[in-house]
Amino acid sequence: MTTKRTIELKPGERIDDLQRNGYGIIQNTEKFCFGMDAVLLSGFAGVVRGGRAIDLGTGTGIIPILLEAKTEGENFIGLEIQEESADMARRSVQLNALEGKIEIVTGDIKRAAELFQKGSFDTVTSNPPYMTGGRALVNPEEPKAIARHEILCTLEDVIAAAAALLKHQGAFYMVHRPNRLVEIFELMRKYRIEPKRMKLVHPYMEKPANMVLIEGRRGGGAQLIVEKPLVIYKEVGKYTDEIYDIYGY
Amino acid sequence: MTTKRTIELKPGERIDDLQRNGYGIIQNTEKFCFGMDAVLLSGFAGVVRGGRAIDLGTGTGIIPILLEAKTEGENFIGLEIQEESADMARRSVQLNALEGKIEIVTGDIKRAAELFQKGSFDTVTSNPPYMTGGRALVNPEEPKAIARHEILCTLEDVIAAAAALLKHQGAFYMVHRPNRLVEIFELMRKYRIEPKRMKLVHPYMEKPANMVLIEGRRGGGAQLIVEKPLVIYKEVGKYTDEIYDIYGY
Repeated sequence: MTTKRTIELKPGERIDDLQRNGYGIIQNTEKFCFGMDAVLLSGFAGVVRGGRAIDLGTGTGIIPILLEAKTEGENFIGLEIQEESADMARRSVQLNALEGKIEIVTGDIKRAAELFQKGSFDTVTSNPPYMTGGRALVNPEEPKAIARHEILCTLEDVIAAAAALLKHQGAFYMVHRPNRLVEIFELMRKYRIEPKRMKLVHPYMEKPANMVLIEGRRGGGAQLIVEKPLVIYKEVGKYTDEIYDIYGY
Repeated sequence: MTTKRTIELKPGERIDDLQRNGYGIIQNTEKFCFGMDAVLLSGFAGVVRGGRAIDLGTGTGIIPILLEAKTEGENFIGLEIQEESADMARRSVQLNALEGKIEIVTGDIKRAAELFQKGSFDTVTSNPPYMTGGRALVNPEEPKAIARHEILCTLEDVIAAAAALLKHQGAFYMVHRPNRLVEIFELMRKYRIEPKRMKLVHPYMEKPANMVLIEGRRGGGAQLIVEKPLVIYKEVGKYTDEIYDIYGY
């Protein structure tokens, strides 16, 4: 267990318990908060012992913090373009006394290959904006809009950055929407990250999938495994056992 | 109910009841028999009222016969390269007195665009050979080997033929192995058949998928729905209700 430090909160912020290693995380429900998507991606992803991982578009920093708790990786970077969000993530890292292992960098995914050494990461994760058409939004500068719509980066930007940063045979983990699966596979192949493992997430057993978790391997051979599906609710308001496991209860 | 006619059986053949419209089908377990794959594909596929459908590599003719029973399509063609199998399928059509609606054509999928009018089908179905590397087989002329390995046609041949035969906005339905999903999507896009609907088939709820059912739309827009998974067994030897429904019990 880590001793939590006292961290200054800004208006609208609160600290939530992550149920992992005694870690907490700062969120601001008006502006920056993580979704189940990020938690499921952290459950799905892995980092090798002593490995170096980067999360593209880290938001609150939830993914590096959960991966630090779960894996034996050595070094975790969270890259975030919105300074206000990066500052919040940085304070969550301090809150959990993880400055020695997690670094939050303010910067653009499209410039990741200049900011970091190419081919130097074992793992790249991303929970990118899902929706296209960001330009049509009323207020595309709103923080939540930037996190959800492809305003500042596209799916191709994310995959191109991952390909540039990964070592040969390094692992890429992404959560996205199933309706864009064909494009996801196409872009991963274009940048030589072969899809190797996939898990569909269904809100209920009887409903279509609303999320997809994908693992790709830089320079890997063609062979995809579609794992057993992940179902969120067994009935209204009641999570399945697998969701409780992932959340660490 | 159709009155079954008397059909001459060849050595090794038997007639199985299809539990649909009183239809039967001739099979030869040593050489040509249908799998659950073909039945699930027939359950997944549709043919519009008055529509024209073709099944590429029809084998026993199971798919045209089941689709004739299930849909209000007008005309069904089964294309099969192995004459012995085509002859057996033709006799199954006679057995069920379906000569007016189903025609079994002996021919090569690679020549389908010459054998039939291009852009003239509402629906194309296929349960093609799943496995690559047919050349390494001990006996690549064995009928089962031809049905299972890409000896006489590749996945690309099947998708290219489907694209040539389909009307604009016509539907393509295929069953295949999930490990080749990336290649399937890539080839479908190459031939402008956009994947629109997908269903993963898992032998048990806790196991990875071992089949995938895909619907594509010729000239369709990009938007994929991943339906609720189909699970075959609820426990050893006991089918799920959905499988009983598809089999028509």
